[in-house]
Amino acid sequence: MKTIAIDIQHALYFAGKERYEALEPAAVKAISNLNNCEGAGNDFHGWVKLPSEIAQAEIDDINATAEKLAAQTDYVVCIGIGGSYLGAKAVIEALSDSFAAYAPKGKHPKVLFAGQNIGEDYLAELQKFLADKKFGIIVISKSGTTTEPALAFRLLKAQLEQQAGKEPAKDLIVAITDAKKGALRTLATSEGYKTFVIPDNVGGRFSVLTPVGLLPIAVAGFQIDKLIAGAKAMQETTLHATPSNPAMVYAMMRNALYQAGKKIEILVNYHPKLHYFAEWWKQLYGESEGKEGKGIFPAAVDLTTDLHSMGQWMQEGERTIFETVISVEESNFELRIPGDKDNLDAMNYLTGKRVDEVNKMAELGTRIAHVEGGVPVIKITIPQMDEHTLGELIYFFEKACGISGYILGVNPFDQPGVEAYKKNMFALLGKPGHEEATKAIQSKI
Amino acid sequence: MKTIAIDIQHALYFAGKERYEALEPAAVKAISNLNNCEGAGNDFHGWVKLPSEIAQAEIDDINATAEKLAAQTDYVVCIGIGGSYLGAKAVIEALSDSFAAYAPKGKHPKVLFAGQNIGEDYLAELQKFLADKKFGIIVISKSGTTTEPALAFRLLKAQLEQQAGKEPAKDLIVAITDAKKGALRTLATSEGYKTFVIPDNVGGRFSVLTPVGLLPIAVAGFQIDKLIAGAKAMQETTLHATPSNPAMVYAMMRNALYQAGKKIEILVNYHPKLHYFAEWWKQLYGESEGKEGKGIFPAAVDLTTDLHSMGQWMQEGERTIFETVISVEESNFELRIPGDKDNLDAMNYLTGKRVDEVNKMAELGTRIAHVEGGVPVIKITIPQMDEHTLGELIYFFEKACGISGYILGVNPFDQPGVEAYKKNMFALLGKPGHEEATKAIQSKI
Repeated sequence: MKTIAIDIQHALYFAGKERYEALEPAAVKAISNLNNCEGAGNDFHGWVKLPSEIAQAEIDDINATAEKLAAQTDYVVCIGIGGSYLGAKAVIEALSDSFAAYAPKGKHPKVLFAGQNIGEDYLAELQKFLADKKFGIIVISKSGTTTEPALAFRLLKAQLEQQAGKEPAKDLIVAITDAKKGALRTLATSEGYKTFVIPDNVGGRFSVLTPVGLLPIAVAGFQIDKLIAGAKAMQETTLHATPSNPAMVYAMMRNALYQAGKKIEILVNYHPKLHYFAEWWKQLYGESEGKEGKGIFPAAVDLTTDLHSMGQWMQEGERTIFETVISVEESNFELRIPGDKDNLDAMNYLTGKRVDEVNKMAELGTRIAHVEGGVPVIKITIPQMDEHTLGELIYFFEKACGISGYILGVNPFDQPGVEAYKKNMFALLGKPGHEEATKAIQSKI
Repeated sequence: MKTIAIDIQHALYFAGKERYEALEPAAVKAISNLNNCEGAGNDFHGWVKLPSEIAQAEIDDINATAEKLAAQTDYVVCIGIGGSYLGAKAVIEALSDSFAAYAPKGKHPKVLFAGQNIGEDYLAELQKFLADKKFGIIVISKSGTTTEPALAFRLLKAQLEQQAGKEPAKDLIVAITDAKKGALRTLATSEGYKTFVIPDNVGGRFSVLTPVGLLPIAVAGFQIDKLIAGAKAMQETTLHATPSNPAMVYAMMRNALYQAGKKIEILVNYHPKLHYFAEWWKQLYGESEGKEGKGIFPAAVDLTTDLHSMGQWMQEGERTIFETVISVEESNFELRIPGDKDNLDAMNYLTGKRVDEVNKMAELGTRIAHVEGGVPVIKITIPQMDEHTLGELIYFFEKACGISGYILGVNPFDQPGVEAYKKNMFALLGKPGHEEATKAIQSKI
């Protein structure tokens, strides 16, 4: 079976082989830490062995729950933010038809998202849209009190109970939360919701291969067993500190580039369905490494689309960027360019060629242009867009992220900075228990 | 009437008042250049007076064409890339219902986009989707030979002619192109398509207030006269080099921050519908300033969504960023948070409050946290999300971009770097006329 391949030759040149190789001991140590559950943040190492340890009974339970929801609903609203949103969104977008939103409902419910913002118009329009729809809810929150999802759940739970009836609504709500404690666990127990557990040792941004990601993905109609099988294969591939470990190579390469002054990493795709995969990746790397005044700034572009927006900057702006290109080897469709007798658009030289061949030459041409323009390029090739490959890609980036954070010298598994805005918001809103903070903040505004 | 307001107090502190004020002479000169059609790239100054000079007859013609398309179609595919795509997409997304894609067609056709990528799956799925639909095409290209749109138009033109018939298809295609020359002009004349003109003195990224943006926006059902009125109001507001000119203030502030080592500007919104407005802004600033080894790197986040992905980096990563926040004063809907007798989620302290009030406190809390964390914040307040305001905002950013590029010392109206990948792609694909380049590039791979 084809798998992920990484090519660093067009990046190594910029960082220097010595700088790259000097990082090997740190990478070896990082892999050892991750494999042995040692090092900073090791209470959040649960994701490392997740693919090989997930029980078949849990996969079956998730699939059965998804089928039950599918049988009763046309839309399932997935409520969550950050890691409780981006993983599912990334995989569903990558595997769905590009125009699925516009098409009539098929066998599976359409998955909508809420609780990932505090948009008054967004929530009002969602409630209006759902007013005459058969819908269910997957609510995802470790604590149940995170403002964004808690607020959305309050509104939609009330609406569902009103539309479907209080008792039937209980069958249409699934909660994914802490095993024992927290507001959502208490509520789920009291209401008798079906529940799944967010493991204590898996942080939000590493949670896509837990029920957090798996249930929404299964509801959308995709095969989570293959996703997990892909991740498991990559768990084996990235187990040891060898030159063929692509996660180690990527982690070392990006740190070497960072040391060489490349401060911004742009994740590049040539397949529009990977747009949200890049958003997932941004959280994974940004939240893991952006601390203590350091960390590569993660950005993303969809090419060739953004060659006509960010392309100028990438070609000729400050030479502080590098690119990591995800290249999809095979399209799912085959589409050939038709001839035209008048050839006014001068495109007949492409007649009979596949669209993807043009895309691949755009990719190659761009790589050559960017490297010549002073931009290091790492290339990650994936065989195609399917569950197995996405599972591999997810685990690849997760493992590389753990290694990379340890090389950088931070704890890649905490996120202390995320609390700052929440504390201020609670103080400003006068949340009970924040009285001192409320007084303090009012003097600042 | 309420208008746009800019607040730089939480940015000025970081750059220093002296550094900011030292830029005034350059800003005054830049405004004079733009008003008098002088300075680098002045052959592309056509956008400066566009709002005040657009003829009522052209607006009427655009609206009549949109109505004609609406009467005959359920979907209109807008074919274009870069500036021939992002402006229309930005305005349509900002004004549309968040769930419009899922809803049944209303009075106006749904606008889809193509020619903004070379995705084989994307195009194949689009063709499959359109196979049983009544659709029309707006094709936008100055030359008619840009690969992405030319390729999409070839495929969709053939499909439309096959589905609707060769003659009826001519009435369903509108071309927006050069006044006289180029492949698309020739084709449109030969086929008898309805056409609109892309003015010679308006570059792609400044073209949203020409038919390039106006026709798709009108087709989607929005009022282009109000969009233009807003832009015209801002044209007057930003005409003179005075302290109350918000475009001058923004241009000076961001350059002062750049000089102070702030290399990345993050455009922040708290209203999810502004997501594509940020993409439009990225092209405007990235393509105008990213040259000669300099320029601020433009990035964007949707908050509070991305506080749970990029928030950690923004709070504690390298202190090389600044934020420009677009704050929408009034939502279009009013939604209040319901009480809950059990209050398990501890949200009853918000009972009866508007969702937007929570959002605004999140915004304020984030600003305080980020400023305290070392991130300068510029705030741009807009009264609401409607055509007039978006017209103002578009022109504000355009004028500021012209001023900013001149302060930076580049020609903000060219984009030489965009050609590099195209040349390589043509060479790799063996395009006639590129034989020498083909030989040269083959030796590189």
